[in-house]
Amino acid sequence: MPHSPITRQSLAAADAADSLAPCRDRFALPENILYLDGNSLGPLPAATPAAIADAVTRQWGQGLIRSWNDEAWIDLPASIGAAIAPIIGAAPDSVIACDSVSVNLFKLAAAALGMRPGRRVIVCETEDFPTDRYILEGLATLADAEIRAVRRAEIAAALDQGTALLVLTHAHYASGEVHDMAALSTAAHAAGALILWDLSHSAGALDLHLDRDGADFAIGCGYKYLNGGPGAPAFAYVAARHRAGFHPPINGWMGHVAPFDFAAAYTPAPGVRRLLAGTPPILAMAALAAGVATFAGVDMRVAEAKSTALVAAFAALVAQTCPEFAVQPPVPRHSAQIVLRHPHGRRIMTALIARGVIGDFRPPDRLRFGFPALYTRFTDTWDAVQILRTILDTGEWQDSRFDTLGTVS
Amino acid sequence: MPHSPITRQSLAAADAADSLAPCRDRFALPENILYLDGNSLGPLPAATPAAIADAVTRQWGQGLIRSWNDEAWIDLPASIGAAIAPIIGAAPDSVIACDSVSVNLFKLAAAALGMRPGRRVIVCETEDFPTDRYILEGLATLADAEIRAVRRAEIAAALDQGTALLVLTHAHYASGEVHDMAALSTAAHAAGALILWDLSHSAGALDLHLDRDGADFAIGCGYKYLNGGPGAPAFAYVAARHRAGFHPPINGWMGHVAPFDFAAAYTPAPGVRRLLAGTPPILAMAALAAGVATFAGVDMRVAEAKSTALVAAFAALVAQTCPEFAVQPPVPRHSAQIVLRHPHGRRIMTALIARGVIGDFRPPDRLRFGFPALYTRFTDTWDAVQILRTILDTGEWQDSRFDTLGTVS
Repeated sequence: MPHSPITRQSLAAADAADSLAPCRDRFALPENILYLDGNSLGPLPAATPAAIADAVTRQWGQGLIRSWNDEAWIDLPASIGAAIAPIIGAAPDSVIACDSVSVNLFKLAAAALGMRPGRRVIVCETEDFPTDRYILEGLATLADAEIRAVRRAEIAAALDQGTALLVLTHAHYASGEVHDMAALSTAAHAAGALILWDLSHSAGALDLHLDRDGADFAIGCGYKYLNGGPGAPAFAYVAARHRAGFHPPINGWMGHVAPFDFAAAYTPAPGVRRLLAGTPPILAMAALAAGVATFAGVDMRVAEAKSTALVAAFAALVAQTCPEFAVQPPVPRHSAQIVLRHPHGRRIMTALIARGVIGDFRPPDRLRFGFPALYTRFTDTWDAVQILRTILDTGEWQDSRFDTLGTVS
Repeated sequence: MPHSPITRQSLAAADAADSLAPCRDRFALPENILYLDGNSLGPLPAATPAAIADAVTRQWGQGLIRSWNDEAWIDLPASIGAAIAPIIGAAPDSVIACDSVSVNLFKLAAAALGMRPGRRVIVCETEDFPTDRYILEGLATLADAEIRAVRRAEIAAALDQGTALLVLTHAHYASGEVHDMAALSTAAHAAGALILWDLSHSAGALDLHLDRDGADFAIGCGYKYLNGGPGAPAFAYVAARHRAGFHPPINGWMGHVAPFDFAAAYTPAPGVRRLLAGTPPILAMAALAAGVATFAGVDMRVAEAKSTALVAAFAALVAQTCPEFAVQPPVPRHSAQIVLRHPHGRRIMTALIARGVIGDFRPPDRLRFGFPALYTRFTDTWDAVQILRTILDTGEWQDSRFDTLGTVS
């Protein structure tokens, strides 16, 4: 973006030149809403209502139990995993859709401990999204391991001969800041440790290369950039070199090599399929499949570059139009979001939502705005900042009813 | 059922007298199908397509992230749990809908180990559905515990001062045989152990009294008798006396007392809410809510009695009409299903399904038929057995294409 003032006209020109602009038609976005929260919950893909209705009414209602075979329900975790794989730079058979990010983190971190006998330390990042640390601490209590949480700058130095695993979120949930996957994977391996990447804020936003960049394990979210619906199933990745040698502790029948033999002894399925435990949630899987399909034909380099440009435009517009905000300046590489800080951030975000500009708020003072490449327009950045200016000018955010912003948004 | 030959007329009279007969209208059953597999996958409730379409198109599509609050998405695990509670004889705040049966078993069995320090043995049943044992063995490897699998007759004798937990499936997945919950809970407690009941084949089929009968923990399935859809979320029960003292090992943000504080330290939510880990799957939860709602106003004593009568009628009709089958005789108390045994069971079941009588097959020789009370008619038992007779008479089951019965049904 240029340093001279940005105009709406220049942004409209950027939209006209945008090769991803037609992807917006893949979504059913409401009228009169500027949705800048796809980093928290992706919007409804246009194809999803019919896909779900078919899964409910025809596949379940008419097909009943027969659809496990006739509609290949049983293969959905693997087939959706294979569809996610190219979005994250992974081989198709190294990804599976299942459970939640939390449960997948537990399973893979436990498997990693088993692969590094004698090492009992899991290193993670103090500033990470707290749930990852909660999960690791729960695992450590059960499995007699130790969690070492360190600050971002101290990660590499914290790795030593006792480290079994390094767990990092690739793109930070608030700042959007991105770790160097290749460098940190190399650092972990140099210490003899494994590395697990949480891609919740990366998958579908950034140009990822898990296989190339040395990841051992990864987990990620289906309901943010992958547009799989609220609470969509998550996914998990295991590098090809570990497919035979990792053993998650939640050994359910769907992860058995032959679930329908009902054998007394557990024999794990090959590769990522052994991450399955219970019966896959088919209706949620159908929505996730439709969400992942919104990425058909999308080059993630182009998607990341567009989101980077959108964030830059938004940051410049805020600086130009709303100087009362501390804009957390975009770092050289970041996910498809940006944070503005303001002591009255909660009320201001609530007032924005009331005017149809939907972002979210994270304590204590962070207004978070997302710019996924598939459906966000450059002109949206202009329109959102104009409304932000209006809210500041009218003082309407001071209305006390705006204290009631709900917990999630 | 009388010992004199059963007639279709007498069964039609039983339907006419059945107080639960109107409940069949709560389901969208396909024409020309006799569905006798609701013990494996409950059929589509009539209200579900509209409920799902609303969740997808209005709540997600239009409401977007705002629906976490505006539509009380965030409360669905607890509100569905409260709706399940009366079906299983539990206090409303002792049940929560989340994850899968497998994952919930892992969480609660691990919590039980933590509540019995010094005791490292989990007793389970050799003949149980294999996945429960797989899960327990995975937990034992991780948490340095021991699994002692014993035969059904040896359960009480296997409990001793080293036993932390007894895990039993209340109604057997194949035979339908039911354990005495009160007696075995008492036996476990007498040994100083806790007891966990898997209600996958009981909840929604039998008259259960978890609170009264001394259960400590329970897990159960949403997609069988609760009609929640393929792979629906499961549920978990924790007795009120344990609400503050149990600590599942998968500590996700949704189980935190204040998830949206993003606190560095994990503080568990009160009671069953701490079983939540990741973000709840809303579309699947919406289907589960509609499934559980099919039980509105149903007295489970009446439901169990009706299913018992249906099973008795079916068994008598098979004995009367198809003597080539070994009918596993209904035990005094059993779930809403029965097993027929035949060396060519797989082909015969496939031929039945081809004629629209849907049961399922379990190796090596078991044809399984379910008779859920809400939608099965007494005349269905007659019609199914007549078609079975026809298949035997024509010999059509010997067609080699009937070797291809899929894995799940």
